[in-house]
Amino acid sequence: MKLQPIGHVESPLTDRSAAPKQADEGAPEALLVFAPEYARAMRELREGQDVLVLTWLDRADRSVLAVHPRSDPARPETGVFSTRSPDRPNPIGLHHVRITAVDGLKLRVAHLEAVDGTPIVDVKPVLGAER
Amino acid sequence: MKLQPIGHVESPLTDRSAAPKQADEGAPEALLVFAPEYARAMRELREGQDVLVLTWLDRADRSVLAVHPRSDPARPETGVFSTRSPDRPNPIGLHHVRITAVDGLKLRVAHLEAVDGTPIVDVKPVLGAER
Repeated sequence: MKLQPIGHVESPLTDRSAAPKQADEGAPEALLVFAPEYARAMRELREGQDVLVLTWLDRADRSVLAVHPRSDPARPETGVFSTRSPDRPNPIGLHHVRITAVDGLKLRVAHLEAVDGTPIVDVKPVLGAER
Repeated sequence: MKLQPIGHVESPLTDRSAAPKQADEGAPEALLVFAPEYARAMRELREGQDVLVLTWLDRADRSVLAVHPRSDPARPETGVFSTRSPDRPNPIGLHHVRITAVDGLKLRVAHLEAVDGTPIVDVKPVLGAER
């Protein structure tokens, strides 16, 4: 059960603590840069499509089982399977993004909350959109 | 980038070739059975909730980069990042399910297309449903 990076995120976000918690909270544009060996797998991805991007949140704490949502101590501690906390046993990030440009092995996407250098592990159609 | 199984699927589906390709195509009820060390992480999961379940599709062929969608040779070969093919570089399954019962470390879910024994790697709120 070993993931292989298929690419990485290029983003102006470099500090996890400064990153927005959700894509719709001011997350910046980012580039998804794929390794050349995956060119065939991405060939039908197009500008204007919505896709799911799976990342490996390599700065996460995998021992965490419960968190205060949004790091707000006033909120009751909640099991991580009911939150989007990056700190969790298997820190896979799931991001719904819109492709705004395709340039060879690079996809430009709007509003991604992952930090610079985050490994990409998969891209999938949004659920229900593809058969 | 090593995943640890947090539980596994118990399902009447035992044969990948006989499994439905999508949850809404006759996929049966299934049990998600978690390892005891993750009890705290699942504590707020409740009957009636919709969640995303991430699995490791351990019978997948990771060398596949393009497929004929729905295994239909009449359909043009398509890069796997534009399909839900289990055969892909990192075979993470993503399943939107409804929890129909909670019993300790077991969650019963409606309509899961993963086969018996599939490792579970994460559970997340559906996108947009949780802050």
